[in-house]
Formats: sequence, C-alpha cells, structure tokens
Amino acid sequence: MSRFYSDTVRSITPYVPGEQPKDRSFIKLNTNENPYPASPMAVAAIHSVSGVEARLYPDPEVADLRRTLAAYHGLEIDRIFVGNGSDEVLAMMYPAFFNRTDTIAFPDITYSFYPVYAALYEIPFTAVPLSEDFTVDFRDYPNTLKALLLANPNAPTAIAVSAGEIEAQLKLRPDTLIIVDEAYVDFGAESVIPLTRRHDNLLVIQTMSKARSLAGLRVGMAFGNPELIRGLECIRDSFNSYTLDVVAQRAAKASYEDVAYFEQTRRAIIATREKAVAALAAIGFTVLPSSANFVFCTMPGKSGAEVQQYLRDNGVLVRRFNTPRIKEWLRITIGTDEEMDEVLRLLRLFVQEKI
Amino acid sequence: MSRFYSDTVRSITPYVPGEQPKDRSFIKLNTNENPYPASPMAVAAIHSVSGVEARLYPDPEVADLRRTLAAYHGLEIDRIFVGNGSDEVLAMMYPAFFNRTDTIAFPDITYSFYPVYAALYEIPFTAVPLSEDFTVDFRDYPNTLKALLLANPNAPTAIAVSAGEIEAQLKLRPDTLIIVDEAYVDFGAESVIPLTRRHDNLLVIQTMSKARSLAGLRVGMAFGNPELIRGLECIRDSFNSYTLDVVAQRAAKASYEDVAYFEQTRRAIIATREKAVAALAAIGFTVLPSSANFVFCTMPGKSGAEVQQYLRDNGVLVRRFNTPRIKEWLRITIGTDEEMDEVLRLLRLFVQEKI
Repeated sequence: MSRFYSDTVRSITPYVPGEQPKDRSFIKLNTNENPYPASPMAVAAIHSVSGVEARLYPDPEVADLRRTLAAYHGLEIDRIFVGNGSDEVLAMMYPAFFNRTDTIAFPDITYSFYPVYAALYEIPFTAVPLSEDFTVDFRDYPNTLKALLLANPNAPTAIAVSAGEIEAQLKLRPDTLIIVDEAYVDFGAESVIPLTRRHDNLLVIQTMSKARSLAGLRVGMAFGNPELIRGLECIRDSFNSYTLDVVAQRAAKASYEDVAYFEQTRRAIIATREKAVAALAAIGFTVLPSSANFVFCTMPGKSGAEVQQYLRDNGVLVRRFNTPRIKEWLRITIGTDEEMDEVLRLLRLFVQEKI
Repeated sequence: MSRFYSDTVRSITPYVPGEQPKDRSFIKLNTNENPYPASPMAVAAIHSVSGVEARLYPDPEVADLRRTLAAYHGLEIDRIFVGNGSDEVLAMMYPAFFNRTDTIAFPDITYSFYPVYAALYEIPFTAVPLSEDFTVDFRDYPNTLKALLLANPNAPTAIAVSAGEIEAQLKLRPDTLIIVDEAYVDFGAESVIPLTRRHDNLLVIQTMSKARSLAGLRVGMAFGNPELIRGLECIRDSFNSYTLDVVAQRAAKASYEDVAYFEQTRRAIIATREKAVAALAAIGFTVLPSSANFVFCTMPGKSGAEVQQYLRDNGVLVRRFNTPRIKEWLRITIGTDEEMDEVLRLLRLFVQEKI
C-alpha cells in the first residue's frame, strides 16, 4: 500500500475481465469473442499501414471511420462517437453525464463493469433486481433517475428487450438518460440506433469486439443526438486526445465496408447457437432464451463451479460469476460448430459421470 | 447544451491538440512528431497481425511488451505500466494518486494538459512561474505538495533539468510524489528511470510518440516502484481493461528491439536541431537551449502570430500558445534537414520582407 494512493485506489474493487490464457490450446468460450477471424478486408487494412503513417498522430476526429459508420446507419457523423472499446466509451459517459449527486440505475445482474465505473466516479447507483425469470421489469425502476443503463441483450443472461419496450420508456422518462449497451445486438436483438433521432434522452453504445471480430483492436461507439456526442467528446478531449490508433481506425472502417462477411459470420454464429441451445436443453440444462453470441445456462442439482472446473480440466474455458442468484450458472460463448460439439460432448460426459 | 451534461462538462475547457491537417502537403512541424518513419521492424510487426489474432482480446497485462521494456531498462516488469499514449497514463495517474483535498504543482509554462486533468478530476493545483529565463527554480515550490509534475525536458521550452537536481528534490520532499514526464528525454536529457529503484516517491512517464516514431499507435509508459504501478493498474482496471490493442503492443515491442534504428534517427534529429538552433540565432531569433526534438524561439520585435501565419501561408505548420509570457514564441518541431532548410529559408525571407 503506497502512502501516495488516492482514496479511490484505497476503496475501489476493479473489474475482472475474463481470463486471456497465454496457452492458446484452450477452447476459449469465456470472453464472448467471435470464433471467426476478422474480415479479410480489415486484415488488409491493418497490413496497409506504413511506417510513415505510424509516425504521425492519428486523426483525433476519427473522421473516416465515423463517415463509414454514418453511412452504414443512415446518420450524420456528429451523432457518432468512437472510443477505445465500448469500455472506454462507457467510462467517459459517466463523467460526461453524471454528477455525484445523481442516482443512476441498472439491473442487479448485468455487465459487472457498470458498478465499477460508478465507484470510480462516486456516482450513487441502484442495482434493481431482475425478475425471477431474469427479465427486466421497468416498473421496478424509480421515476427520478438521472440515468438508466440497460445492456440489450443483457449480459450474462443473453435476454433481449424489444425496441418498442425501450421507446415506451424513453417517452415515459423524458428526463432520464437511457443508455442502451448493444454490445451483442447483432446476434438477434433489435438496435435502437434509429430511435436516437427521435429521442434526445437515448444514448446507444456498441462495440466491434463481438460481431465484428475485432476485440484485439479495441473499438467502441456511441450513437446519440449531437449534444450528447459533444459531451463525450468534451471528456475524451480532457482525458486523452487520441484514443484510437491509426491501425484500429482503418481496420474498423474496412470491417464495416465488408457487409457480406459480417452477415455470413453473424448468421453462422446464430445458427450454431440455436443448435447448442437445443442440445444443452436435451442434456438437461436450463438455458435462458439467447439473443447474443453466448448462452447462459445451469444444470439443476449441479454445482456451477464443478461444471466449470470439469470443462477447464478438459481444455474448455467458460465464464462463471460468483455472485448472488447466478453462481450456479455458466456463460458459454458460442464458438464454431466444432468447438460447441466438443463442449456438448464434455457436458454429456460430465452428466453421465456425476449422476 | 444538453440538459444531461454533468457539472464537469459544463465547466471544463478541454485540451486542444496541435492541428492534424487532412491536407498532407504541409511541412508539419507543429506536434513534435518524428520526421523519420517508424522502425522497419515495428512496421513488420504491424503487418504480422492476423485476422485470428484480431478477433481475440489483447493481453490486458501487456506482458510481452513490458518484458522487452524491462530488459531495455534493467528493471522488473512490475515496475512498468503501459497505456494508450502517455496522455492516458497521465490521465490515470491523477485519480490513482490525488484526492480533491490535495494540492499539486507544476510550472506555469509546461504541457497544457496538466491543468486540464486537474480540472477533470477536481484536483487543486498551483502553477508555479518559471524564472525569467524559463528555467525551473525548485525553491519556488511549496514543501507541502502532494505532487510535483515536471516535464523534462520541459515543453514547450525544451529546457532540461539534470537528474542530480531531480534526485535532490526527491530527497528533500519524501512525501511529495515527483512525476517526471520524459516525453522528449531521448533527444538530450538524462532519464531518471534508474532513480525509481532508490526513490518510492518518483514516477517517470515516457511515450513512444516522439523518439520512437509511433505517435500513430498510441503507446505510453510509466516507471516507478511496484506499489505506484499497482495504483495505476487499479485505475486502468476500473476504466478500461484493455487500452492497448494487439497491433500497438507488438509494434512497440519491435521498436524497442530495433536499437540501431532508434539510435540512428535520434542522433540525426539532434544533429539537425543543432544546425537549426545556430541558423535561427543567425537570423536573429532568441532560441532557448533545447534538449528536445523541437526548439522554442522568438524574434524580438516581431509578432509570433504573424510569423506563424506567414509560415502557414507558405506551407509550414508550427505551434504557438496564445498564453501569457509566451505568445510571441514559436515551438518548431525538428524535421528532416530538408524540412528545416525550408523553414529557415522562409524565416529569412520573413525577416527581410518585414524589416
């Protein structure tokens, strides 16, 4: 403990990301990465960067990439913010919009970084319990919130709410900023990006780490009305002028230009997921309805920790959160068909051995 | 003005980086970039990243790169932190070590991001005037500071203090954290990294944007005792788990392995600077003694704004800070010999035309 530590460092418990093993022999289904490589067009973009370009600061406006995103979504570029992964976008959103006298809310079971950001910036928050079936009931949320954070589909449950439900809340709570974190939206939920034009209390966060296979390059986005975007830019420009390097900017742009590859890999993952969900149910697992590139499941009567350890001992990493309500549940990323066949084979063996 | 803005956004004035013109026909001597391309080994490293690697999250520990840095500096890796540019390292240092009840200090003329960070985190600061000759007089700094920030060489003055002077302060102020920002150290100042082993109140910040020609990849480092490094890691892990992408990690490592290229380009810049300083003095400029890859100069009797505009009109960008004491001064980055010849030619013309 250094005598120089701030009160923040003395009190905070950082977020713990899923393991990134140095040993790449594991089947890695623990951090919701895409099983397919990045688009060949994105890889070509990485390989196009020269030493002359690397010596110069990247474009702080990220203009080329934002123009591509704007065309893709039918928006103007002043409605788009780009950061170093959606984690950075979220981390900048807190000081942009929340004061230490505000209260924000999010579900008790959701992305576990949300309360960490709240602790970092000393923003009071309410963790509102999901219903018994792990769905969101908006009636449980106070009307006086400064902000409501919603991962859609939610993580780690994989359950989505509809755009219609979100729009109803946008209308019902005009003075609450509703933040919809759509990290997994491309795997089966409905994006509310189009609603940002109609509602100035909506901010939508996305990432290129999941459906775009670019976790290694750290690109996240926010979509909202230009005033909200300017708020994020103000914090970014007071924190780090250039958070997105020249390689990431170019590869991200190329990824969005390769629509065919995106559609093909996204659909392959959805198809694999549907087969996996059916197979898990057949083995005896309870599986929540998934709109994401992962499934959240539990085997009644079995210890989540034991199943996870068994998989690990047999070369498969999955994620488990040792927290109330969900500690017997596993979050299994959807891999390739072959990877899922191996997980399912192991789970069948586990059930047979242990019964 | 969005009704959702925080008090921070309502009150802060962000940092303004030097212009990154889209039009690359300018001779760009305004942001202290290296005139030479990144090391061919670094470029090969960029080009070695595959689509399979891009799909996976990068190593959050940045272990390979930190091992290379550790070997280079003769340190253990737990004494090294790596972030998304030295700006991010600085931005994480504030909440890691400073409370809103602390007072920190730095020179009145220095990197203009320091007071912006202080505003972002609401840390009280004292801007201590440099002496008339733009040197630091440590006797002007209170003894009760939580921290003292020193850019060495200072920017935009380019003036360095010796390691001995810094060590004297480390001993004199054991309860003050002394942060030495060595962004430009490789161009002629003495690094105090070796002192981090003896003094637990020293944190040294460096960047790969200047001497390493990697501004486009956003890599910065901190060196200090392991407890200080853990403080930075705590904030990083509460903000963004992976701020350095797989490409930047690999290129940065390769850059450090290419010692010969680094020495060759660094020395070329120093040699060009020495010629430029002599030529500027011959034209009639007052030039501060430079240990950096830029010179800070003024022409007695001439308006800094006019000289800057004249250069711009003739295709050369240089930086000027429109702030007290230095608004007639220009910060000119050292380019190639050819680029400096062109700047000097223009400045001679300017003097002839205007006299």
